[in-house]
Amino acid sequence: MPKQDSMRRWEDLGPVAENGLFDRRAFFKGGAAFAATMTGYTLSESSRAQALVDDPWSATVGTPTGPYETRSRFESSVVRTLTNPTGAPRSQQSRTPHHLIDGTFTPNGLHFAISRTGPPDIDPEQHRLVIHGLVRQPLVFTLDSLMRYPMESRMTFVECGGNSAPLWSPEPIDATVQSLHGYVSCAEWSGVMLSTLLDEVGIDPSATWLLAEGSDALAVHRSVPISKALDDAMIALYQNGERLMPGNGYPMRLLLPGWEGNMNVKWLRRIELLDQPAMSIYEAKTYAPILPNGKAYQFYFLQEVKSFITRPSPSLSLSGPGFYEISGVAYSANGRISKVMVSADGGQSWAQAALQEPVLPKAFTRFRTPWRWDGGPAVLQSRAWDEAGNVQPTRTQIVAARGEATRVPSINGFPSQHYNGPTSWGIDSDGEVKHVYA
Amino acid sequence: MPKQDSMRRWEDLGPVAENGLFDRRAFFKGGAAFAATMTGYTLSESSRAQALVDDPWSATVGTPTGPYETRSRFESSVVRTLTNPTGAPRSQQSRTPHHLIDGTFTPNGLHFAISRTGPPDIDPEQHRLVIHGLVRQPLVFTLDSLMRYPMESRMTFVECGGNSAPLWSPEPIDATVQSLHGYVSCAEWSGVMLSTLLDEVGIDPSATWLLAEGSDALAVHRSVPISKALDDAMIALYQNGERLMPGNGYPMRLLLPGWEGNMNVKWLRRIELLDQPAMSIYEAKTYAPILPNGKAYQFYFLQEVKSFITRPSPSLSLSGPGFYEISGVAYSANGRISKVMVSADGGQSWAQAALQEPVLPKAFTRFRTPWRWDGGPAVLQSRAWDEAGNVQPTRTQIVAARGEATRVPSINGFPSQHYNGPTSWGIDSDGEVKHVYA
Repeated sequence: MPKQDSMRRWEDLGPVAENGLFDRRAFFKGGAAFAATMTGYTLSESSRAQALVDDPWSATVGTPTGPYETRSRFESSVVRTLTNPTGAPRSQQSRTPHHLIDGTFTPNGLHFAISRTGPPDIDPEQHRLVIHGLVRQPLVFTLDSLMRYPMESRMTFVECGGNSAPLWSPEPIDATVQSLHGYVSCAEWSGVMLSTLLDEVGIDPSATWLLAEGSDALAVHRSVPISKALDDAMIALYQNGERLMPGNGYPMRLLLPGWEGNMNVKWLRRIELLDQPAMSIYEAKTYAPILPNGKAYQFYFLQEVKSFITRPSPSLSLSGPGFYEISGVAYSANGRISKVMVSADGGQSWAQAALQEPVLPKAFTRFRTPWRWDGGPAVLQSRAWDEAGNVQPTRTQIVAARGEATRVPSINGFPSQHYNGPTSWGIDSDGEVKHVYA
Repeated sequence: MPKQDSMRRWEDLGPVAENGLFDRRAFFKGGAAFAATMTGYTLSESSRAQALVDDPWSATVGTPTGPYETRSRFESSVVRTLTNPTGAPRSQQSRTPHHLIDGTFTPNGLHFAISRTGPPDIDPEQHRLVIHGLVRQPLVFTLDSLMRYPMESRMTFVECGGNSAPLWSPEPIDATVQSLHGYVSCAEWSGVMLSTLLDEVGIDPSATWLLAEGSDALAVHRSVPISKALDDAMIALYQNGERLMPGNGYPMRLLLPGWEGNMNVKWLRRIELLDQPAMSIYEAKTYAPILPNGKAYQFYFLQEVKSFITRPSPSLSLSGPGFYEISGVAYSANGRISKVMVSADGGQSWAQAALQEPVLPKAFTRFRTPWRWDGGPAVLQSRAWDEAGNVQPTRTQIVAARGEATRVPSINGFPSQHYNGPTSWGIDSDGEVKHVYA
């Protein structure tokens, strides 16, 4: 057993950046311990005895849990925000509450979902997936027949091309991390590799693209290069262990790890192999915004390296000076996250964050940095690198390249897509946290 | 783009064990493809056109998903089985439906849970965790104060010591993998390392054990060696990203990766440091069964290396000869799974299974093996090794060491604990799957 007095304190390592950022090595086993954080409180003998008295809920028998367990009633505020809260028969966009969850996976109930015409109420026994077009032999697959094929599982994020769009605003929008970055989530998906099924139908040598089509009322469809289909595309049947959620494509979706969310076609019913892209509205217009130089940003499917701090963040105010952990998520379509730097002074000085193992390609990586808030103003920021050598651009750089909104848009406005610059949280001396530009 | 005709077929690798087991390398990228599996079906031109006609659910607008998404109504049969289905005020044991899920994590709604007196209805704002006893300074922690400390996330299984107990029966019990092995699940847990909090209170040198106590009506409590507390014990606050489920200890539980489920004390309210074990009923009697040699099996906390096949398995019958994937989970308290072997002839010959990456210590590892069923009788079995060199004993070996039930117990009987031998699925010529001994 280690001797208490031989342990090093996290503060012994000293700050490694301005405004109270400490070294990530403070987290390592056998390194500094976190004593003297002291957010627990001491009690007198009499009140300590009081703390050991039964609480009311201990004095009664609880209600046994049922066949499918649901959350505590005290968690009812941990929900997705909706753009269409009344559930009217039109587009619904729901955002993940990143500031209220932790770890690296998004629970299925809180995974973001966007649908134009609502999730179709698909009977999985009746659903069919057709693969046809430039193939040797068109085939029709039932869910049962897909279950006969070899399966794989992979943890990967899905991000809407429009995620983080409020950051294109010329003025910072006063909103939470959920409102700003809620259109990205991460899950473990299991299913059949698309390459397995394409091998089964036989790819005609002239096929270079495929069209993937959903069975929602709008039949949302996107074109995908065959090279991605043969790389890591999956027909996903399970989301975090259970069948897909209705909003995420039940009973099957196309999963294109790291690529624009809308391309991960949900309620998948048809794949047609083509010798050119189909130029659906989503590639021809919606996700092809005009750049400042007059050209269109088209067929750029990657969701590039990004990170944001989830705690502290707006609505989670600091309760007083002292130790806090700065925590957030980083991810990249180009592979693993290699490094995350955190600043507490708006990007003037930086400390390297600890990355939670396992660091997986095209998946959320949670980062954590020890921080001692001195009670004064601070601006928190994170910046991530991926193993392919990419780094998040500064906001100035990406706005120069892609253009800025001409006015402050509504929180649901989409002046552009694919913002992957940093996000800054300003902290005032009351401990309130607010979205700022820095 | 790879040329279709240059691809190797999985069958080209040839069987590597009797009764149709193929090499796991058939799964590797660039290796054999799985063409000619052909569970999809071809259609005439007219019926193919029919397959592309809108299904009824595509002809109408769906209902937008709500703030916390729930499963499709077609998934209502994917549930835990309950020993107390009416929810009477007594013990409730719920089992994970391993045969109906996939991947490596158990969804929160389906994570197994056992409670003696029902989950207490804890208000997280009012809940307190007291750490006292042989410490320098006793402290009381609120949930908010715990949120100030550095956190970690880790994926780990939790298994009841009584899981797999039906395998002690002298005759095989006709039951599903859910009934036989449903008291083990795997999740990503996030929280504060217990070592961090023990550093905060200061461990008295005389402390060698701690008592962990829950705030359920029975105040379930277990003794834990301080060495485990300082190794990888966690005060878990999040389960798969969201707050713990009520049945799994909301708002906090002790997590002891790889150790007997009951020790992972739920609804944790008190940790007392001691100079000896407290000898609670769970260590003195319930989990200290008498061995054939008259000694007691006590303080053996590890859930040792185990594996079982989840698909095919009882209730999932085979639909005809041809290709199937044999899939299951393996895990060990002693670290990572290093190897899983699969047999289709009751343990006479073996093929090495592919392990789904990432292979993490003390977590589920999914294994998969390609298999071609010839339509005749077969007996499927799996056997796992861990990185510490341990291997699952045969059923004969473990029964000789620990004793066998004297009669066929009920499915809820607990003649003993810690069965980690193999499980055999017998398949008849109709494709029906049944639990057998082999």
